[in-house]
Amino acid sequence: MKAKKAIASLTILTDTVLPGETNPLHNLFGGELLARMDRATSIAASRHSQEICVTVSVNHVAFSKPVPVGSILQMEAKVSRAFTSSMEVYVDVWKEDRITGEREKVNEGIYTFVAVDDHGKPVKVPELIPESALEKKRYKGALQRKELSLVLSEKLDPKKATELRSLFF
Amino acid sequence: MKAKKAIASLTILTDTVLPGETNPLHNLFGGELLARMDRATSIAASRHSQEICVTVSVNHVAFSKPVPVGSILQMEAKVSRAFTSSMEVYVDVWKEDRITGEREKVNEGIYTFVAVDDHGKPVKVPELIPESALEKKRYKGALQRKELSLVLSEKLDPKKATELRSLFF
Amino acid sequence: MKAKKAIASLTILTDTVLPGETNPLHNLFGGELLARMDRATSIAASRHSQEICVTVSVNHVAFSKPVPVGSILQMEAKVSRAFTSSMEVYVDVWKEDRITGEREKVNEGIYTFVAVDDHGKPVKVPELIPESALEKKRYKGALQRKELSLVLSEKLDPKKATELRSLFF
Amino acid sequence: MKAKKAIASLTILTDTVLPGETNPLHNLFGGELLARMDRATSIAASRHSQEICVTVSVNHVAFSKPVPVGSILQMEAKVSRAFTSSMEVYVDVWKEDRITGEREKVNEGIYTFVAVDDHGKPVKVPELIPESALEKKRYKGALQRKELSLVLSEKLDPKKATELRSLFF
Amino acid sequence: MKAKKAIASLTILTDTVLPGETNPLHNLFGGELLARMDRATSIAASRHSQEICVTVSVNHVAFSKPVPVGSILQMEAKVSRAFTSSMEVYVDVWKEDRITGEREKVNEGIYTFVAVDDHGKPVKVPELIPESALEKKRYKGALQRKELSLVLSEKLDPKKATELRSLFF
Amino acid sequence: MKAKKAIASLTILTDTVLPGETNPLHNLFGGELLARMDRATSIAASRHSQEICVTVSVNHVAFSKPVPVGSILQMEAKVSRAFTSSMEVYVDVWKEDRITGEREKVNEGIYTFVAVDDHGKPVKVPELIPESALEKKRYKGALQRKELSLVLSEKLDPKKATELRSLFF
Repeated sequence: MKAKKAIASLTILTDTVLPGETNPLHNLFGGELLARMDRATSIAASRHSQEICVTVSVNHVAFSKPVPVGSILQMEAKVSRAFTSSMEVYVDVWKEDRITGEREKVNEGIYTFVAVDDHGKPVKVPELIPESALEKKRYKGALQRKELSLVLSEKLDPKKATELRSLFF
Repeated sequence: MKAKKAIASLTILTDTVLPGETNPLHNLFGGELLARMDRATSIAASRHSQEICVTVSVNHVAFSKPVPVGSILQMEAKVSRAFTSSMEVYVDVWKEDRITGEREKVNEGIYTFVAVDDHGKPVKVPELIPESALEKKRYKGALQRKELSLVLSEKLDPKKATELRSLFF
Repeated sequence: MKAKKAIASLTILTDTVLPGETNPLHNLFGGELLARMDRATSIAASRHSQEICVTVSVNHVAFSKPVPVGSILQMEAKVSRAFTSSMEVYVDVWKEDRITGEREKVNEGIYTFVAVDDHGKPVKVPELIPESALEKKRYKGALQRKELSLVLSEKLDPKKATELRSLFF
Repeated sequence: MKAKKAIASLTILTDTVLPGETNPLHNLFGGELLARMDRATSIAASRHSQEICVTVSVNHVAFSKPVPVGSILQMEAKVSRAFTSSMEVYVDVWKEDRITGEREKVNEGIYTFVAVDDHGKPVKVPELIPESALEKKRYKGALQRKELSLVLSEKLDPKKATELRSLFF
Repeated sequence: MKAKKAIASLTILTDTVLPGETNPLHNLFGGELLARMDRATSIAASRHSQEICVTVSVNHVAFSKPVPVGSILQMEAKVSRAFTSSMEVYVDVWKEDRITGEREKVNEGIYTFVAVDDHGKPVKVPELIPESALEKKRYKGALQRKELSLVLSEKLDPKKATELRSLFF
Repeated sequence: MKAKKAIASLTILTDTVLPGETNPLHNLFGGELLARMDRATSIAASRHSQEICVTVSVNHVAFSKPVPVGSILQMEAKVSRAFTSSMEVYVDVWKEDRITGEREKVNEGIYTFVAVDDHGKPVKVPELIPESALEKKRYKGALQRKELSLVLSEKLDPKKATELRSLFF
C-alpha cells in the first residue's frame, strides 16, 4: 500500500449561509457548521483511503468568530495523519468578505475517521506524507491527540501516554 | 473598474449525497442538485462582482448521469462572461469514484445573475478576461446564449439576434 | 398508445414561503424555487406518461420577480409536447396578493423529462394534443427548443437544426 | 363584508414523497403530512379572509392509509365554515396511482384558523356560502365540532353544547 | 401481557426553535410543532407497547400561545389509555422563560397510535395503569374520545356512543 | 450570584431517527448527531446561566456505536462546570431497544458555551455544585480539559498547564 501526500486529500466545500441555517442571532447555527465540517472531513478521509469512512470522534472544534447570514464560507479539509485504519482530518474554515474579497479564519476542527469495508470491519489505509510546514506540524501533533483521545475515553493510562507527556516537560 | 480573470471567480463545492437528498430511485434528487448549483454559481458571481447577486435565469442544465447516494460530488463554477451588470456562470459537476478516484462529468449548468445594491438596483460589474481555450469558447458562446434568452422570453426579435443567427449559417 | 390532451397533465402546487426557504434578502431562495418546479413538472410528466420520469434537462427558467417570505405561490405545470420517450413540461409560477387576491406571474420554467422503466430504460409515451392557443404555441416551440438543447450540448450541427433556423428568417 | 363561496378558497397542493420525507417503513412520515396539511389549509383560510391566518387547533386528522415513497399526493383544502374571526378548514388527501391514474383517498383533516391583523389581534372574516352537498354537510357539522373543541378544552359545559347534544338523540 | 404504569411511557423532548423552523411571524411554524409532537408521542406509544407504532389519528391539538424563535420548548408525552392494539397519547408542551426559568403551557395534543408487527398487522398491547389524578382523568376521557373519533369518521352511530352521550346529560 | 446544582440544568432530548437523517449506511448521520447534541447542550447551558449561550468549542465527541434508522435516541445534557462566563456541558447519548426497553450508551460529547448579553458581550454565570460521584468526577476533569483546550489552540504554554500536567505523574 503506497503512502500518499496530504495534498491529495484536500477537499474544498464553498457554500453560503441561508436564513434557514442560522441561530436566533442570525449567525450560522453551530450544529449546521458541525454537520458541514463532518461532510467535508469525511470526503477528505475517503479520498485518502479510497474506502467507506465513518466518524469515530470529533477531537476539537473551535468556534472563533460568528458567521453571519449571507456569508461566503469556505472549508478546506485535509488528512493530517493516517494510523493503521484510522485517519485524523483537519478542517480550516474561512469566511470571505464580499466587498474586499479578504479571507478571515473563523473556525477549525479536528475529526477522526476509520476506514471500513462493506461489513463495517476496519481496513488498512495508506500512510500519509506531510510536505508543508503546517502539514508536518499537524502530523506530529496527531500522535499526541490520539493518545489524548485514548486518555479521555479512559482507554489509556495517562502515565503511559509517552508522546503526550513529552508536551509537558 | 478593472477587468478580472475568469479563474478568480472559481468556486469549488465538494459534498456527498445523503439519503435525505435522494429521489425514490436512490439518486441525488434533481431539485437538490439544482439548488446546490444555484449556491455554487451565485458565489462565483459574487466573487467576480464583489456585490450581492440574484439569480436571473437558469439557461440550461443537462442531467447526463444519475448520482447515486453516497457519491462524492464536486461542483466547479466560474463566470464565463460579464455584461453591464449581469454575469453568465458555468458550473461543471463531477462525480468521483471512491475506489479508483477517477472523475466523471455528470452534469453541466449555465446560470445568469445580476449584481444589485442594497435596494435591489443593478450595479456595474467588471469585465471578464477568459484565458484557457474552454474559457474563451464559453465567453464567445455567452453572447449567443444571451440573445437566445431574450428571444425565448420574447424580448428580442429572432431576426435581430445577430450573434445567434451566425450559428446557423 | 392513445394520444392525451395537455390539460390531463395539469399539476397545481400551491404553497407558502416560510423563513427557512428564503435567501438573505428574505425572498424565496432560487434553489428552493427550482426544486419545487422540479417536483411539479415531474408530476405533470408522470401524469402524462403514467411511468417513472427522470429529469433530463432544465431548458430555461426565468426569475422575473422576487417572491417575499409569507407569499402564496401557485405553480401550474403542464406537458407542452411529447416526443418518443421524452416530454417537455412548462411550469408557470404565480404569486397571489393576500389582500386583493390578484395574481401576478413571477416565474416560468421549461423542464424536460424522460419516461423510464424499473431498470431506467426509456419507454414510449403517448403523444400530446394541445388545445388552447397557448398550448399550441408552446407545442410548436418545443421542437425548436429540442433542437436548441441538442445544439447547446453539441449533439446537433446548428446547420441541421431546421426548425430552429426557421426562427431566424 | 360580503359572504364568499366555499369554492373560492379551494387550495390544491400536489406533490411527491421523497425518501427524506419518510418514516422507517418507507411511507410518508406522519409529521411531514401534518405539516403539509397545515400549509394547504392555512392558504385556504387566507384566501377566504384575505388576512394573515394563524393555526388555532387541529380538530381531527385521520391517517387511513400509508403513502409510500414516490407517491403522487394531492391535497385539496377548502374553508368549511366561517365564524366571527375563525374559520374551519377541511383538507382531503388523495394518492394517485401512477399506472392507472386512479385516485384513492388516504387522509382527511380538519384545522381551525383565526384571522389576525399585523399585531396579532383577531379581525372579522366574511361568512361562507356552502354550495355542494358535501360543503353543506361539513358546514352544518362545523358548529358541532366548534362546541366539541370548547368542551374538550373545558371552556364549555357539555350540558350547554346544544348542537352537539342534538347529535345524540 | 402485564399492565404497565402510565409514567413508564413518559417521553421528554426538549429543544429550541431555530429561524429555519418558524413562520413568517417569527414563531414556531405550526406544521413543525405538529411534526415534533408526532415524534414525541410515537416514542411514548413505542415505550408502552415495545412494538412499531403508526399514527392513526390526531384527535385534538390546541395552539394556545405562539412560541417565538429562540424559545426553549419542552414536550412531555405519555400514554393516557391503551385499548386492544391502539393507544391514546397525550402530549403537553411547555415554553420555558430563559430569564426567570418559569414554565408556561403553550400547547396540548392528543394522538392515537396502533401497534403493528413487521407486516403492518395490529398486535396486542399491555393495559395502562393510570396513577396520578390527571392520568386518571385522561384515562377516563379516552373512551369518550375514542367514541367521538368513531362518530366523526362515521363508523359509529352517535346514538350508540354510550360513554360520549353520558357527557351531555 | 447564587451557585446552582448540576441537576438543575439537566436537559433531556428524546427523538427518533428518520430516513432523512441517516448516512448511506442507514445509521444516524454524524453531522445530524452533532447538531442535536449542540441543541441539547446549549439548552443545558442556558438553563444554568439564564442567559443567551453561544457554542465556543466542541472538546470531544466519541461515536462509539452506530445508531440505526428507527432507533429511539435519548440525549441527557448537564453542565459539568462553570467558569467566569463559560460553561462545560456533558451530553450522554443512549439508544433504547424497542423490544426489551434496555438502554445502551452510544455516544458522549463535551461542549463549551459562553453566556453573552444582547450585544454578544460575555456575562458572569453562577458557579456549579456537583453532587453525584459522576458529576464530581466531570467537574474535576473540566479544569484539565479547559487547560487542554487552551494548549491545543496555542493560547497556553503546555508547561504552565498545572492541572493537566498533574494527570501525567
